[in-house]
Amino acid sequence: MRVVGMNSGTSVDGINLALCEFSPGPQANTLSCRLLAQKEYAHEPALRQQVLRLCREKHAPLDELTELNFVLGEAFAAAFLHFMRDEGLTSRDVDLIASHGQTIYHLVEAGRTLSTLQIGEAAVIAHRTGITTVADFRVADMAAGGQGAPLVSFLDALLFADDEKTRALQNIGGIGNVTFLPARQGSTGAYAFDTGPGNVLIDYGARYFTQGQAGFDEDGKLARNGQPNQRLVDEILAHPYFKQTPPKTTGRELFGDAFAEAILTTAQQRQLSMEDTMATLTTVTAESIAHAYHNFGPAQIDEVIVSGGGSYNPVLMAGLQAALPDTQVRSFDTVGLPASAKEAVTFALLGHETLYGRSANLPQCTGASAHTILGKITPGANYLRVMQQLFKSEQAEPAAAEQPYLNKLTFVN
Amino acid sequence: MRVVGMNSGTSVDGINLALCEFSPGPQANTLSCRLLAQKEYAHEPALRQQVLRLCREKHAPLDELTELNFVLGEAFAAAFLHFMRDEGLTSRDVDLIASHGQTIYHLVEAGRTLSTLQIGEAAVIAHRTGITTVADFRVADMAAGGQGAPLVSFLDALLFADDEKTRALQNIGGIGNVTFLPARQGSTGAYAFDTGPGNVLIDYGARYFTQGQAGFDEDGKLARNGQPNQRLVDEILAHPYFKQTPPKTTGRELFGDAFAEAILTTAQQRQLSMEDTMATLTTVTAESIAHAYHNFGPAQIDEVIVSGGGSYNPVLMAGLQAALPDTQVRSFDTVGLPASAKEAVTFALLGHETLYGRSANLPQCTGASAHTILGKITPGANYLRVMQQLFKSEQAEPAAAEQPYLNKLTFVN
Ligand SMILES: Nc1ncnc2c1ncn2[C@@H]1O[C@H](COP(=O)(O)OP(=O)(O)O)[C@@H](O)[C@H]1O
Ligand SMILES: Nc1ncnc2c1ncn2[C@@H]1O[C@H](COP(=O)(O)OP(=O)(O)O)[C@@H](O)[C@H]1O
Ligand SMILES: [Mg+2]
Ligand SMILES: [Mg+2]
Repeated sequence: MRVVGMNSGTSVDGINLALCEFSPGPQANTLSCRLLAQKEYAHEPALRQQVLRLCREKHAPLDELTELNFVLGEAFAAAFLHFMRDEGLTSRDVDLIASHGQTIYHLVEAGRTLSTLQIGEAAVIAHRTGITTVADFRVADMAAGGQGAPLVSFLDALLFADDEKTRALQNIGGIGNVTFLPARQGSTGAYAFDTGPGNVLIDYGARYFTQGQAGFDEDGKLARNGQPNQRLVDEILAHPYFKQTPPKTTGRELFGDAFAEAILTTAQQRQLSMEDTMATLTTVTAESIAHAYHNFGPAQIDEVIVSGGGSYNPVLMAGLQAALPDTQVRSFDTVGLPASAKEAVTFALLGHETLYGRSANLPQCTGASAHTILGKITPGANYLRVMQQLFKSEQAEPAAAEQPYLNKLTFVN
Repeated sequence: MRVVGMNSGTSVDGINLALCEFSPGPQANTLSCRLLAQKEYAHEPALRQQVLRLCREKHAPLDELTELNFVLGEAFAAAFLHFMRDEGLTSRDVDLIASHGQTIYHLVEAGRTLSTLQIGEAAVIAHRTGITTVADFRVADMAAGGQGAPLVSFLDALLFADDEKTRALQNIGGIGNVTFLPARQGSTGAYAFDTGPGNVLIDYGARYFTQGQAGFDEDGKLARNGQPNQRLVDEILAHPYFKQTPPKTTGRELFGDAFAEAILTTAQQRQLSMEDTMATLTTVTAESIAHAYHNFGPAQIDEVIVSGGGSYNPVLMAGLQAALPDTQVRSFDTVGLPASAKEAVTFALLGHETLYGRSANLPQCTGASAHTILGKITPGANYLRVMQQLFKSEQAEPAAAEQPYLNKLTFVN
């Protein structure tokens, strides 16, 4: 089965796509995966601004929100069709689309019903492409009492749980999240949470100091020659989120523009230079991750594998290595898969698992009370062909008592 | 396949449920249906008020909307579980749930992207019940350029298209909608649209004059002894919606509280009595339907079959009969199916069709450019069993060129 995974992260910078070919492995509930192509397409600036405004204002005019769901669906469909053209493929080369969509709200406040909202209408994607589309992955985990995140831990655990090394899989997108994989425990030993800000604070600083010219601190140029102000770093890291016991997830609701603005105001009052302010924001990000490891991670971590756009910021990577002297910090690129494609590959895998009716949340990572099938299937024109093929050939009888789930994934070239 | 359809309409009065047993007919794309049970459960007053407030204010705090989606999901799941208990059934007696959810917004403005929003999280329903749940039926039709409504026309056409009689199937819920079925044209002759206000105006008047004691004008008691003010009736019917050429759909966005309030203000200025005002609102509703028939219906209509809560209002029914002297006006109850169960039965049918991968919109009714499969499948614990059963036994090969769709439905007792 060939699946295209698509995602737009909290940075709202663009849509990442990855085409994966999955083949059932020799045993039940095993799978091999080949990454055939991957790409990122930037969002139209006006659309990006609209999404960021909605997230920021928190008061959505219903008409705008309802419309934006469809407009973003068109954007995802267009990205898919560009991807097909650029890679010399047609829709017939793809059996399934798995779209994460765009997170607009993620509510995990005490005393409230856990809930989350991803938009980018799957019915629009399925209609424009003719391909059955799985989307809305987070809600099922939340329905089971989980935080709906991190979902990427599923891929992390299947690929990186190791017999010798204790690993941390760190993603640095807009928000940072980690999956810990203690050695010799397989995927059942995995646990995960959001470490806090990923690139959001750095991006805000870069936009501020360049009057909006730069959307991020490319290659760490702005922070490189600065000195972090440790007092301010420590003040920021005193935020209660960092002390909260996992599982925990966060987003722009907490570490958004207001949070970043308050830091910049303080930095200005204390007359920090642009360079020192950027170095401070970068250090906060690196140290928030290292602190999370010290407070909530395994006693000894052999290596950290960093994915997401933050892995391309050398100042951030160096800061992380400095804060974790006994651990090898390396980029996800070094494992042979592009760091930027990791989330799209994850959603391709999750969408595949939805169709197979296998659960794909790791309860110990999300806090859910049970293994649950994630995602919703929006039938496209190819629905009957795909389902008949899948359920005719599917030999395995459904496990009656327990929800089946994948226990081995192999990447092949 | 046993399917429970669920719906909460624009009146937000409660959740209607219907358990239907579908069996494939002798030819491909034919079906027979048996209604095994049906019931309505009133909404918690606080929940109802919250939904109505969100629809009214049009400015939704994102956290409240996101949370309400999950809270309503719990309400639908609870209604389902009550229904099972009250009917002496267990979840194992049901293969599939088909939930329309609660419409929060429906956007069909010129110059905007057609879009719609139904909430009542299907993942919550699937998790609490263990049953695979199809939901979100309207978006696929909109993705295909349709208005996403009326969807009930699909059932209307399959059941009531006749070789001798030209029929109108009128639903009077919060909003009114009609499906015309010209004689001898089968389901391809069907066309449909929203006629305008159903019970919304009457309900608003009843609430106003009873200081909120009554939610509606039970059995037409308030209007019964009044005289409609024809000048006011005509002024209201001058609203451009009534002249707009179908296909057209509407909702609380147009005929909501603000619209009703303006009428009551005018009635007060003209010193109409409570009885006369209520008679006026009831006459507006009846005449808006009759006018729609005259302007946009077939030249001669033999009978009107009225469903929805409005069919229980004798003053409204008499008004409709008076405005349509050459047509027999009768309640849906007279065809052997309870009028209040019709929409729940419709969604049971639509959910069934989603799983079978058959399209279920009537493009000539919704304005869509193509036949499209509606709905999204949220896998529950029974997903593998249901899909394996369905696609193993399914003999018919998928039609390659054209989307298959049901062309015969028979109701059996
Ligand atoms: N060359 C680079 N130098 C510094 N930062 C980078 C670089 N490339 C990407 N980034 C950072 O990565 C972010 C995007 O990361 P991404 O993983 O796409 O996040 P998300 O998943 O939130 O969309 C950018 O906003 C930027 O901060
Ligand atoms: N006995 C009755 N007398 C008058 N009106 C009634 C009666 N029963 C129901 N109704 C009307 O029907 C409405 C509910 O209709 P319903 O079909 O459930 O609408 P919706 O689909 O919008 O929820 C009530 O608000 C009320 O106006
Ligand atoms: Mg991104
Ligand atoms: Mg109702």
